[in-house]
Amino acid sequence: MTVFLVGAGPGDPGLITVRGLELVRACDVLVYDRLVSPELVDEIPPHARAVSRHDLDQHEVNELLVSYGRRAHLAVVRLKGGDPFVFGRGGEEALALADAGIPFEVVPGISALSAVPAAAGIPVTHRGVASQVTLVSGRNCDGSVGFDPAVLAAAPGTLVLFMSLGSLPDIVAALLDHGKDPWTPAAAIAHGTRAEQRTVRAALAELPAAAAELDAPTLIVIGDVVASGWPEQLAGVPAVHAAETEA
Amino acid sequence: MTVFLVGAGPGDPGLITVRGLELVRACDVLVYDRLVSPELVDEIPPHARAVSRHDLDQHEVNELLVSYGRRAHLAVVRLKGGDPFVFGRGGEEALALADAGIPFEVVPGISALSAVPAAAGIPVTHRGVASQVTLVSGRNCDGSVGFDPAVLAAAPGTLVLFMSLGSLPDIVAALLDHGKDPWTPAAAIAHGTRAEQRTVRAALAELPAAAAELDAPTLIVIGDVVASGWPEQLAGVPAVHAAETEA
Repeated sequence: MTVFLVGAGPGDPGLITVRGLELVRACDVLVYDRLVSPELVDEIPPHARAVSRHDLDQHEVNELLVSYGRRAHLAVVRLKGGDPFVFGRGGEEALALADAGIPFEVVPGISALSAVPAAAGIPVTHRGVASQVTLVSGRNCDGSVGFDPAVLAAAPGTLVLFMSLGSLPDIVAALLDHGKDPWTPAAAIAHGTRAEQRTVRAALAELPAAAAELDAPTLIVIGDVVASGWPEQLAGVPAVHAAETEA
Repeated sequence: MTVFLVGAGPGDPGLITVRGLELVRACDVLVYDRLVSPELVDEIPPHARAVSRHDLDQHEVNELLVSYGRRAHLAVVRLKGGDPFVFGRGGEEALALADAGIPFEVVPGISALSAVPAAAGIPVTHRGVASQVTLVSGRNCDGSVGFDPAVLAAAPGTLVLFMSLGSLPDIVAALLDHGKDPWTPAAAIAHGTRAEQRTVRAALAELPAAAAELDAPTLIVIGDVVASGWPEQLAGVPAVHAAETEA
């Protein structure tokens, strides 16, 4: 059998892939993250075991996957929020399985990267506005900031910050110190693509105050595309909004 | 009714979202790109009309969507390869619909960004190797290069280049001129996630020659993550590879 490293998508359970849902529905063991939608965990067969990795560190997760993977009669699905390879540490799990000689298959997921901004009416690339996108994570595994603020402040186009809500005041201060325009349009989108999605928009300098009430997961988008999109209520999630505007 | 802007994913038809496939199977009109898998076009209902946008420019596509969108009894699906908002010009279509007052819904797709590298054994972010990813498109709509090579050469972490195969010699020369290490690991992945996927790996300076035989769509990945992944035959597409290594 094979261990399947599957991305669950950004939140809305309808945004898992067709292949990913097939595998969840046919698994014997599901190892899942806290950010995976409960609706997807509920899709496992009656006989299957769902194992939350909530209290495990990454090394323990790797060992768990290798341990299950060695039982050749089990179909093991490792279900991770978003995409396993965009700040998801899927590479470490893939390498642990490869080192142990255990066959595995990657089934990518929709990253928050563009799906969450789109659900808030923001295209991360837009003709004439942004032809470059820079992705960083607000924190490294050791708690340090995961990027050089001078480089980030100089990057043209759109900045997308993952896992940055807690350190947002520090990040914005560093970007402004390195010359980023304080009036750059910015947005913070909490629980993107889910019914409880909430978006705040502000000039970059004001974003930390504007986003103070949000909770994780929250994606930060900085750049002129934030002012170039369409009204959130015309699009995205929840889908009924679009229908309501027609009535 | 609503116009649905749906991402088809990177190539493998199993990588469309559950929601996206539901909409394709229930549509009255499907407007699709050349890069969309024929298997997905075949999923429309018998009564539905499939319209290729192949010979239309972007303005004509926008007008077509508005025109179909005005017919309130039609469910219109606009199916685009990858994700509509990662160099997919989905923002222009969304704005055209918004300007015309036509309700629409965004259903994101899996971008090639991380899915295609992962199918070649390359994680675009990897602990201790890359905590920043920079995405650019090799060409703008007017044919000019879509980025500043000095900025790109200085960006740490992973570079992912879309639509860059034709201009790869020029792009690599510009990066090297601006000080990028010629030995930086690099890869070119053609037809990623499909059965005909083909990957070449080379030092950056050698990549244009190594990739000369590939055809579009090809994604370029530059950075130490290219040397940090797992063997391609252990993972990804076609899935039978993983099973074969077990036998």
